[in-house]
Amino acid sequence: MSRPSEPPGPRPPGIGGHGPDGRSGPTTRARITQVRAGTAVERRDDLATEEPLEIRIQAGGARRTVAITMRTPGHDFELAAGFLYGEGVVSPADVASIAYCTDEDVPPQARYNTVTVRLRGGLPDLPALERHFTTSSACGVCGSASLDALRDRCPSLPPGDDGLRVSPEVLYALPERLRRAQSVFGKTGGLHAAGLFTPLGEAVAVREDVGRHNAVDKLVGWALMGGRLPLGGHLLMVSGRTSYEIMQKALTAGLPVVCAVSAPSSLAVDLAREFGMTLVGFLRGERFNLYSAPERVGV
Amino acid sequence: MSRPSEPPGPRPPGIGGHGPDGRSGPTTRARITQVRAGTAVERRDDLATEEPLEIRIQAGGARRTVAITMRTPGHDFELAAGFLYGEGVVSPADVASIAYCTDEDVPPQARYNTVTVRLRGGLPDLPALERHFTTSSACGVCGSASLDALRDRCPSLPPGDDGLRVSPEVLYALPERLRRAQSVFGKTGGLHAAGLFTPLGEAVAVREDVGRHNAVDKLVGWALMGGRLPLGGHLLMVSGRTSYEIMQKALTAGLPVVCAVSAPSSLAVDLAREFGMTLVGFLRGERFNLYSAPERVGV
Repeated sequence: MSRPSEPPGPRPPGIGGHGPDGRSGPTTRARITQVRAGTAVERRDDLATEEPLEIRIQAGGARRTVAITMRTPGHDFELAAGFLYGEGVVSPADVASIAYCTDEDVPPQARYNTVTVRLRGGLPDLPALERHFTTSSACGVCGSASLDALRDRCPSLPPGDDGLRVSPEVLYALPERLRRAQSVFGKTGGLHAAGLFTPLGEAVAVREDVGRHNAVDKLVGWALMGGRLPLGGHLLMVSGRTSYEIMQKALTAGLPVVCAVSAPSSLAVDLAREFGMTLVGFLRGERFNLYSAPERVGV
Repeated sequence: MSRPSEPPGPRPPGIGGHGPDGRSGPTTRARITQVRAGTAVERRDDLATEEPLEIRIQAGGARRTVAITMRTPGHDFELAAGFLYGEGVVSPADVASIAYCTDEDVPPQARYNTVTVRLRGGLPDLPALERHFTTSSACGVCGSASLDALRDRCPSLPPGDDGLRVSPEVLYALPERLRRAQSVFGKTGGLHAAGLFTPLGEAVAVREDVGRHNAVDKLVGWALMGGRLPLGGHLLMVSGRTSYEIMQKALTAGLPVVCAVSAPSSLAVDLAREFGMTLVGFLRGERFNLYSAPERVGV
């Protein structure tokens, strides 16, 4: 991805969202038409902002763009750090500093869409990176090969039975606590959330994003930047479904329990069972399904 | 991504899903623990299958892996064709044939996770491909640059006002019609869907996947393989939210109207307005929001 050589054209009419410094907020005002039983009303509404974020790594004079991801602005440094950690590109000790772009030749509205993570050592091996991002979240062409590859890449993955125990009553309360902590969802109805909770159900940190993987990356990046990794002894609660990728991010962060409002995929369950993680799904009211490691839940 | 040099290890216990030929189905049976108000019951449940799919292109003797995406098995050729078309890698005329892997050195369970699209011309330029997959869905580091890049890449994008008109009553009925056509969701509660409808609300094709982008790719691939592109005069209905990436796929397929059960992102609305697409969101009961090109909806 090369930087644009000249400022991009004007934004389409009707959508704002950039501050005077070119920085986008998490919500964007728009004029829309609301239809209710055949009657149309013009009104203003808040949308969840979606903008690209370019994630770069830099070591000495060498620099490289690792990924461009669509995300909701806010907690961008955490997103960059968490993404790079989850993909196995950096360990917490590698990160020297994180900054927005300050290049004069980048237009203002793009500077806050570019984050550079400065590394202490050299740049990671380029072929390894290529392999990584060609394969996206997968490291093989069948599910169990993906799990094998994950074990190879991360030789000391934490979960397995760690003695942690959680009551069903704590689990029942998590969806409402996650929702209450979502500041942007209330305005837009359009954001995924990921929350970190103690075994007693207290919210430690909650992050939102249009991309559900990004919400988890932001949470993991928050922990990385605060020296809190691995996150053993904590619960992760996500607003949507659980996939291989969500579980992989939770595993590499050391999270032993993952809870979700909706369904897990088969490979999410495979991963949880393989690595001794507790996976809870369809957590609604006083009901949930336990897919793996039920010993952590006292029922 | 290199092929595994030896068969992967055994699958974790408790999960099935492979047929005798190693092929996975769209659902996977698993033994789970269901908790209702503190009481736990062991039962069998169906999960939406998630397995990686390696998408390769081949021209003459040259071959290249373009992407590996996590997907729900089924309609894999459509997924490969639709993905490559949506990313601008192939046009319909380029595709000579599509096949599963038949290499002897690939283990059976991985053969149905590898699809090769044989092209009539040569392989697309490799640097262009790199740029593409480094940038993921984005082609710039700010939203409007992404829209500009999309216009550059696809000089003759169809929508704009095409005279198509749809009644609110047709829209009200779409979510239920989509749901009724979802065969796997009913079993698992865990799949996204994308449906193609006529302006009178008749379902033309519906596809499901754990990945919401994949469901749209399968639909576009279905149209490509049947010689039906561009899809002018049709409506796309998706089960979740609308993002830049969903709108980009719809636009390149020529779809003038996109409807969703949930919220659009700011950049989805930007894209719809920029290219004259009608974007409907929060379509529930007899209510919806119109974000762009309202002239196609008779209210």
